[in-house]
Amino acid sequence: MGGEFTLIGRYFDWPAPPGILGVGDDCALLPVSPGHRLAVTTDLLVEGRHFFPDTCPEALGHKALAVNVSDLAAMGARPLGCVLGLSLPRVDEAWLEKFSRGFRALSDEVGCPLVGGDTTRSVAGVIISVTAMGEVSEGAALKRSAAKPGDDIWVTGSLGAAHVALELLQGQYPEHAALLDTLRPWLERPQPPVAFGSGLSGLARAAIDISDGLLQDLGHILKASGCGADLDYSLVPAHPALKELDAAIVQRAVLNGGDVYQLCFTADAAARADIKALALRHGIEARIIGRIRPGQGIHVSAAPVPLGKEGYAGFDHFG
Amino acid sequence: MGGEFTLIGRYFDWPAPPGILGVGDDCALLPVSPGHRLAVTTDLLVEGRHFFPDTCPEALGHKALAVNVSDLAAMGARPLGCVLGLSLPRVDEAWLEKFSRGFRALSDEVGCPLVGGDTTRSVAGVIISVTAMGEVSEGAALKRSAAKPGDDIWVTGSLGAAHVALELLQGQYPEHAALLDTLRPWLERPQPPVAFGSGLSGLARAAIDISDGLLQDLGHILKASGCGADLDYSLVPAHPALKELDAAIVQRAVLNGGDVYQLCFTADAAARADIKALALRHGIEARIIGRIRPGQGIHVSAAPVPLGKEGYAGFDHFG
Repeated sequence: MGGEFTLIGRYFDWPAPPGILGVGDDCALLPVSPGHRLAVTTDLLVEGRHFFPDTCPEALGHKALAVNVSDLAAMGARPLGCVLGLSLPRVDEAWLEKFSRGFRALSDEVGCPLVGGDTTRSVAGVIISVTAMGEVSEGAALKRSAAKPGDDIWVTGSLGAAHVALELLQGQYPEHAALLDTLRPWLERPQPPVAFGSGLSGLARAAIDISDGLLQDLGHILKASGCGADLDYSLVPAHPALKELDAAIVQRAVLNGGDVYQLCFTADAAARADIKALALRHGIEARIIGRIRPGQGIHVSAAPVPLGKEGYAGFDHFG
Repeated sequence: MGGEFTLIGRYFDWPAPPGILGVGDDCALLPVSPGHRLAVTTDLLVEGRHFFPDTCPEALGHKALAVNVSDLAAMGARPLGCVLGLSLPRVDEAWLEKFSRGFRALSDEVGCPLVGGDTTRSVAGVIISVTAMGEVSEGAALKRSAAKPGDDIWVTGSLGAAHVALELLQGQYPEHAALLDTLRPWLERPQPPVAFGSGLSGLARAAIDISDGLLQDLGHILKASGCGADLDYSLVPAHPALKELDAAIVQRAVLNGGDVYQLCFTADAAARADIKALALRHGIEARIIGRIRPGQGIHVSAAPVPLGKEGYAGFDHFG
């Protein structure tokens, strides 16, 4: 990094919180609480693959961090900090100002300070690499392999909005184009339940964040845990703005739509009251949508449209 | 990530060491020893900026990790693990096999297991993002700001080889082209003294890895510590193969050449015997090349060529 690229550092030179050594030495230094494990996750976002060149930079800064803290939440980990690698075709100060503002707002909100990074000129397009670190009590991490038959299956928030927003951006359902303004924030500014997820450690068993669709991501839990699941579609929370769409469109968006960054988790029925209290404390909607059972695959009851293999990519894995 | 890109995972699906949860869940989980801090560093390497498109992929895999564990060593941290983000224009299995082999060989050698990652298709060229994590005893990290007047200034290994290798690759000194075979490994496969660096915590005060040149990197320590330095050029270890070159070329390579990934550190004179014993134990050359003094700037004595501003980029900062 040299010349004008050192300028970029300006946009990310935020003071580190007390107890943390941030940008400016060979490494950042972070405290990890006694009896805790370090949780780490990383994502690489490439312009033209993961986001459109004209994506609002503030939303992009938000989302680049959101997808990573969502993984921390899905492990039951409390954020400690993050590092950012940024490769840009040119120094565009207006872009940087907005990107850094979006990144920082979420960083402040969820308590995941930026402690280090690297910036460089790219040959083509914007590349964003984020690594987020958190801590979780020994033995209380929400591993995918921890679900047990009889566990309740929960989801947070609502489903389907991000998927339909993407379809509308791609020009589908032109008669519903007016919905885009309502749904777009669900695609561009996902709000993973970070503090709630961290509170689930010790309460829930298995968890995953919904990035590829409910059926597919729940499927990862089932495969890792060697179980099956029964879902009641009538309990699965679709985003309320979807109600004007055809049932088939909604069903597909809810069961298979990705980019949700809400949690799907399993827990013993004895934990229900504690989980509801935790959700209330964090202002999170959390609902039971089914149950883990022995066997394999996902059976969905009360679905208005028959679940075939067609288009149910997540379901295919278990058909 | 989808389709053929899931294949890439195959090349990096190495079993995690005992006590570590590696690839396959929302996060990796790593133990951090009681009384230790987490040390984190990240680097982004872009084809056409940091390496040539025809760079040997095995050497590239090595170097991508080497530059990060070098930062851990410069903090006195013991490696815990690393994550890798890889963006490739296409799936080239021969390239992946070699890249992963080079990455893994160094990972095994220095004890820095790959615990997670993300792969994606790039729009143009190869992008490599590595984040390395380590642990260092509370209060024993080798911060840049810790040097004190009277401290010895040490360097490990030898200097100048990587810089001259780069110049030869760029077509300079054609009469010495035969040197390239000897020098190239110092450019393409740097060997940071990782275990030695970790052993320095508690023995040394300030440290930095030499990535931008001795004068410039020592300058970072001086600036952060509010000190100056006296160097004796006759004590600075040039790579022995450079002796056939003009003194001016060697002097510039040794004082300003980057890509070294050896350590420059300061320590109280009382630590000399322990540091020499540590170096002996790890098979590392470590030499005293000068002393920290009050004031600012670097004074270099016994230099065969006068140090002007011309070309002494590192020196300029303190001229």
